[in-house]
Amino acid sequence: MKATGVVVEYNPFHNGHYYHLQETKNVSGADCVIAVMSGNFLQRGEPALLSKWKRTKMALLGGADLVIELPYSFATSHAPRFAYGSIYLLQSLGAESFCFGSESGDGALFNETHDLVNSQNYTYQAKLREFIDTGLSYPSAAARAYEALETPLALDLSKPNNILGFEYVRASRELGFRIKPLTIKRKNADYHDVLLGKGDIASATAIREAVFSSDIRKAKHYMPSFTFDLLAEEQSVKGTLMNWERLYPLLRYQLLSSSPSEINTFYEVEEGLEYRMIDAMRSCDSFESFMKQLKTKRYTWTRLQRACLHVLNKIRKEDMLALLESPPGYIRVLGMTGKGREYLRSVKKSIDLPLVTTVSKHDFAGLEMEAKTSLVYAQGAVRNVLRAEKEEFNTPPVMVE
Amino acid sequence: MKATGVVVEYNPFHNGHYYHLQETKNVSGADCVIAVMSGNFLQRGEPALLSKWKRTKMALLGGADLVIELPYSFATSHAPRFAYGSIYLLQSLGAESFCFGSESGDGALFNETHDLVNSQNYTYQAKLREFIDTGLSYPSAAARAYEALETPLALDLSKPNNILGFEYVRASRELGFRIKPLTIKRKNADYHDVLLGKGDIASATAIREAVFSSDIRKAKHYMPSFTFDLLAEEQSVKGTLMNWERLYPLLRYQLLSSSPSEINTFYEVEEGLEYRMIDAMRSCDSFESFMKQLKTKRYTWTRLQRACLHVLNKIRKEDMLALLESPPGYIRVLGMTGKGREYLRSVKKSIDLPLVTTVSKHDFAGLEMEAKTSLVYAQGAVRNVLRAEKEEFNTPPVMVE
Repeated sequence: MKATGVVVEYNPFHNGHYYHLQETKNVSGADCVIAVMSGNFLQRGEPALLSKWKRTKMALLGGADLVIELPYSFATSHAPRFAYGSIYLLQSLGAESFCFGSESGDGALFNETHDLVNSQNYTYQAKLREFIDTGLSYPSAAARAYEALETPLALDLSKPNNILGFEYVRASRELGFRIKPLTIKRKNADYHDVLLGKGDIASATAIREAVFSSDIRKAKHYMPSFTFDLLAEEQSVKGTLMNWERLYPLLRYQLLSSSPSEINTFYEVEEGLEYRMIDAMRSCDSFESFMKQLKTKRYTWTRLQRACLHVLNKIRKEDMLALLESPPGYIRVLGMTGKGREYLRSVKKSIDLPLVTTVSKHDFAGLEMEAKTSLVYAQGAVRNVLRAEKEEFNTPPVMVE
Repeated sequence: MKATGVVVEYNPFHNGHYYHLQETKNVSGADCVIAVMSGNFLQRGEPALLSKWKRTKMALLGGADLVIELPYSFATSHAPRFAYGSIYLLQSLGAESFCFGSESGDGALFNETHDLVNSQNYTYQAKLREFIDTGLSYPSAAARAYEALETPLALDLSKPNNILGFEYVRASRELGFRIKPLTIKRKNADYHDVLLGKGDIASATAIREAVFSSDIRKAKHYMPSFTFDLLAEEQSVKGTLMNWERLYPLLRYQLLSSSPSEINTFYEVEEGLEYRMIDAMRSCDSFESFMKQLKTKRYTWTRLQRACLHVLNKIRKEDMLALLESPPGYIRVLGMTGKGREYLRSVKKSIDLPLVTTVSKHDFAGLEMEAKTSLVYAQGAVRNVLRAEKEEFNTPPVMVE
């Protein structure tokens, strides 16, 4: 059996994702699609709309065969780290290729660009530092540094999906280039596009806006019916889907009951950010107003949200740094189809990493952080911690036959 | 001018408190009554129904002339420490006497009992240790140790108000006996009595039960109209009065996002209590069920609630112990009548401790803890922290002319 991989968040799963999975099968010629998916917290520093279990179900219903959890320490990291953990897991599972959506759609171009950037790495690093020193955020400085290279790049590295794809390619090459990058051109929707209504594909950002608007049905046209049903069910049971506003009272309590030096022990809280967080918390009754007050040119919204996430989850610098020293130490299966199970059986003996199907039976570095952050997530969603803990510890992989 | 003192919580102020204030004036012959009152958190390890500002207003309307805050580190301590801080403040303010309600009502008996216990202190301590070693809680063991003394005590030290009164007397004698103990017999209501309806005096416990029952008006008969009006207003504005249930989500978040060793750094968390708290938190959706699961013969409900309070407020052992080494370092005026102000003016020059009227202008040991715990209290009551902070930092004393 031949497997390919995708790196996903599915927040929530929509028609664009469905198209991506179908095309991935086409271009890779693989029998089995492995999705490496973030758990309850995402790369933009946000809680997922729906729990990892429900999003796993969406992934399987939408065409993935095996869903693997990207651990918290990778899932909530900057793009290079996020990409490295994801590609590492796919490679460990024996995938021959991986396929990402990009604005470019030209796979060869990613490889060429990687070589070109490498050959001008000294200039790139110097320019990057220079732009950061002018007060730009890391992503803006990086985009400007690419533009400033002597040999211009044909790949537009100011586009979000090109950037992420470029990081996947870089990770794959760092890992010995044993897993082949494939890319397909994204259809119809820009990542940041917040308008619905062009064809039947819209960005996840636009869909989230619709989901949190007065009428969830506005989003129905842009997602498979199983996504809509799961969203509507969650909304009717819990009143509203998960978002930062539901967790803000806990973040605020954490900020007001801790000293600045305690807050500074949490990952990504640097350069006096703890004082700015405390100040903003004092006058803001919503997470949105809190973030607006926190925002400066220096930090991206994403970077600040990630810092908030680590404060909320009480992730200490030393604990995170210890995890970041190594690649993922286990493969956690969140769900599979019959075909996914067959694939797993066929490669089981050649996989170096231990397979985790239920957390309660294992004790690997990083799994404890997974359990802890899942319980915090559950605080915004359900009142019963035991139920949340059972779900995290004892849920067997989701099976879709 | 001649002043006397009372030590109070007023949770809430009721007819029994009114009677106590009137009788205090009668038996002391004083012109001015000083009330030392706990702030937002109380000796039983609970948040007060109403904020310190509203309870101060009740105190002034009910007959007190000057209301002084008992700092958190004393207000939430065991009886000896609670009594020591209170009597120290009253003595510092130049009160000639203090007056407490007791089951006994016989002031001379408290003094005699103090001498008698002192003369048999060695036996008392040995017995106390013996009963504690059988697994009894401190208060039960103390009551049994008193009973077991060779010369029997005429004062019944198993009654809650006798015990507290005895601690006041002990504190006053430790402090040089410059302030004279007076006691009046409590009317009609036992401290733990939960039934309303005997005359027009009921215990605060019974009144709180009525207040949290379906109909707050059941409690109306047992309190002055200004108390009822303040309670009813608060209930209509906030939906319900403050209690532990409103703070439980924050306590639970604190417990689930902290390691056992972190929780063990908080005051009164001893002997593995951190593990039992974490276990109980996992399966309990309400503070009441949480406490029921936590309770053992070894610890009183009060002792456990106090430990919860220190976890909620993140009060570290070392911070609390540093404060407990010294008597209160300042006198914080929460409110006064014209007569109270006149008294304060007359004694101002002879008072050794600094007077604090608005917190924002001072920086004394203990005041920071007051501010921090007030903000946590406000989390259960209002959503805007800034408003809560302004209230704590900038509220001038309540004036009732």
